[in-house]
Amino acid sequence: MSVKLPIPNAVSASLSETLRQRRQRLAERVDFPVLLWAGRAPARNFPANRFPFRASSHFLYFAGLPLENAVIHLEAGKLTLFMDEESADAALWHGEKPKRAEIADRIGANMALPLEELPARAKGAATLAIQSPIVYQQQCEILARPVVAASLSDGIDRQLAQAVVALRLVHDEAALMELRQAAAATVAAHKAGMATTSAVRSEAEVRASMERELLARDMTCAYSSIVTIHGEVLHNDVYSHSIQPGDLLLADVGAETASGWAADVTRTWPVSGKFSATQRDLYEVVLAAHDACIEQARPGVEYRDLHFLACRAIATGLVDLGILKGNPDSLVEQDAHALFFPHGVGHLLGLDVHDMEDLGDLAGYAKGRSRSDRFGLSFLRLDRPLKAGMLVTIEPGFYQVPAILNDPARRDRYRHAVNWERLAEFGDVRGIRIEDDISIAADGHAVLTQDLPADVDAIEQLISVS
Amino acid sequence: MSVKLPIPNAVSASLSETLRQRRQRLAERVDFPVLLWAGRAPARNFPANRFPFRASSHFLYFAGLPLENAVIHLEAGKLTLFMDEESADAALWHGEKPKRAEIADRIGANMALPLEELPARAKGAATLAIQSPIVYQQQCEILARPVVAASLSDGIDRQLAQAVVALRLVHDEAALMELRQAAAATVAAHKAGMATTSAVRSEAEVRASMERELLARDMTCAYSSIVTIHGEVLHNDVYSHSIQPGDLLLADVGAETASGWAADVTRTWPVSGKFSATQRDLYEVVLAAHDACIEQARPGVEYRDLHFLACRAIATGLVDLGILKGNPDSLVEQDAHALFFPHGVGHLLGLDVHDMEDLGDLAGYAKGRSRSDRFGLSFLRLDRPLKAGMLVTIEPGFYQVPAILNDPARRDRYRHAVNWERLAEFGDVRGIRIEDDISIAADGHAVLTQDLPADVDAIEQLISVS
Repeated sequence: MSVKLPIPNAVSASLSETLRQRRQRLAERVDFPVLLWAGRAPARNFPANRFPFRASSHFLYFAGLPLENAVIHLEAGKLTLFMDEESADAALWHGEKPKRAEIADRIGANMALPLEELPARAKGAATLAIQSPIVYQQQCEILARPVVAASLSDGIDRQLAQAVVALRLVHDEAALMELRQAAAATVAAHKAGMATTSAVRSEAEVRASMERELLARDMTCAYSSIVTIHGEVLHNDVYSHSIQPGDLLLADVGAETASGWAADVTRTWPVSGKFSATQRDLYEVVLAAHDACIEQARPGVEYRDLHFLACRAIATGLVDLGILKGNPDSLVEQDAHALFFPHGVGHLLGLDVHDMEDLGDLAGYAKGRSRSDRFGLSFLRLDRPLKAGMLVTIEPGFYQVPAILNDPARRDRYRHAVNWERLAEFGDVRGIRIEDDISIAADGHAVLTQDLPADVDAIEQLISVS
Repeated sequence: MSVKLPIPNAVSASLSETLRQRRQRLAERVDFPVLLWAGRAPARNFPANRFPFRASSHFLYFAGLPLENAVIHLEAGKLTLFMDEESADAALWHGEKPKRAEIADRIGANMALPLEELPARAKGAATLAIQSPIVYQQQCEILARPVVAASLSDGIDRQLAQAVVALRLVHDEAALMELRQAAAATVAAHKAGMATTSAVRSEAEVRASMERELLARDMTCAYSSIVTIHGEVLHNDVYSHSIQPGDLLLADVGAETASGWAADVTRTWPVSGKFSATQRDLYEVVLAAHDACIEQARPGVEYRDLHFLACRAIATGLVDLGILKGNPDSLVEQDAHALFFPHGVGHLLGLDVHDMEDLGDLAGYAKGRSRSDRFGLSFLRLDRPLKAGMLVTIEPGFYQVPAILNDPARRDRYRHAVNWERLAEFGDVRGIRIEDDISIAADGHAVLTQDLPADVDAIEQLISVS
């Protein structure tokens, strides 16, 4: 009995046609050959104990399947697959895998060859640098030239990166089907996390119940989950704290489908099942920012304007609560909101959770634009007009980050903007973030994660369901 | 509020004393300085999206904590910790981590310095090659010489590897405490897997319920779980099959504690909750081999003799069932048992699930011994006399591997040894393995995983508990 390939069932019927179209669109943009490497799994503590294989997203986009150590050659819409057959020993340990010819057929390759044929056919090809240092060395050797990160590249590598950005910015129907599956699994994970909270005592237990939902669907995490009562630590990957009834729990957990498509969702909920008055007040401020941005998301809107919309909503809410003092617009101009909302309102989402971040800001920033030096704005990962087919996150937040709020220079600069005594009354709020995945459509947008409510009553309801 | 270090609580009180003793024992064996690198997490699909950090086991053994990018210098029992403080930006994203001086204090370091001080103090030091290709390059640069895998090394690197093997072969009490914790979590995972089987429909769901138990204890998987109805695929990492009442499910899942200590356990159970007559017959054959090996495990016994004990027990059982024909001893001499039991009976266990396998066979094979060419025996990972303090797995199995059984040369060679018609009656058994973790003690042994029964009645009981 043959062992299954990790092919998402919904896509497999039309996989080769989808891939053919993607390759054709690439051929319309570049007139040179392209080589894309899949990569290989890194060793964990010894060579045979490896991290799970994660194929390069660029490879997945055009080849569809996570084929370790494979390389594809694209030229004028034609695909050549380079990969070696499994050895007899490998069949003993890893089972009999489909043959190269069978795989080539499934992805619609025009030719399939062993890897030893690759160097002779690599001449003049453009490529994108891969994450695996070992495979990266192979890239340089086989192309017989240095390969650099796309953000530093020029010539055909740069042209390739720009062409790939143009394609991957706009998701086709097959991609959206995968992205919806990732979103649905992620919604289930968050509901499971909420439902289990009152029955458990640690961050680790909540995380376990959430990731279980992803594993049970044969998916993986698109990124290291954040499940913490210390939401003020923006990229927290520690799960060792016990959770107490007075805590807010922030969970940023997203699924990745077998062929690599991601979701990215955050909810924040009270461990006790009921928001305190102060928690509810600040939650409503973040929710208002979240809702306002989603409401405005449509083709033609500048994503940076959504970011500032969130900043103004947060500043307005904090003025209403007496935490900030002054005119919201002027507070935003001074970056006073960034004391509490220091990151950008979101980013691209696709095969990568920060889609195409391996290309630096080539995908996130429109041509001619670059990162701002302003605090808060410098962490904005996306600055482009929205376009039908794009998928973005909307994820405003409110945090009390000690490294920011205890900084003497900032305390001095914002001494008139912040009512520090009033702020101290909100000590039971360390971090709140609300994040959804928004698909931009010709006539507006769709919230892929709409089955997961974000309003206070619904959240409290989901917790009490347990 | 400071964020916790991932320090196992049970060990932390006496951590620095334990580490001091380990370093002292190393100092008794080597008279040159030693540098050990912790390593760094590899990128997954883009630089900021990384696999979880897993420190080098050699570093963990002497430094106790998974300190990414750190290096330790050991000389005459003295420890110098080299690591950089977190940047202000890192504190924003990752929270305020303990300072270098505080960490140095917890692990009993005599000195703590920034990494820029390392090159000046690296002269003449021995090391062990690390898995991360990027950090490996740093090793070579900082030592200003090539570093090779321990199995190919000579001079002081080779002496260091042998000294580390001598120490890590024999677990101290702090290590055993961690190993017991890993075993206990693993037992819980297997019980959860059995209890959930009748309620679910896929390998993925069983895997999810098992790994949930590890995550809930803030542990991780020591290796990629095998949870499959295709137990004949020895290193199966696919979870996409649905499970049917007639299937046997093989689950090889083990925990790793926060400081890196592993468990490694396999059970095989019927999806329906009841073994068929043929499944039970073959299960009892494997169980008899398993029990006989554990029974004999004590200091002074050659591990290879346990392997042959398992081979003979399996050959005897298969003769009794009419699958093999002839005298069991002579069948084992011909490697006929290896048609169905092609791997070794187990391996070392410790900080690595195949402990110290990064050193090639330096740990697994006693001086002067090397791998056999014989089929079956060539995959034996351990060939040493057992010694008090060692931890080994015992994991006999029975498999119907198509790549072996359909091989014309083997079918011809064993045409008189196998009753192929009789074998065909056991078509509902593709793979069975039973694996426990055995701690060798002065007066015999302890089964760290003894709370997980392996006999047929108890297994059926655990499944029906759901």
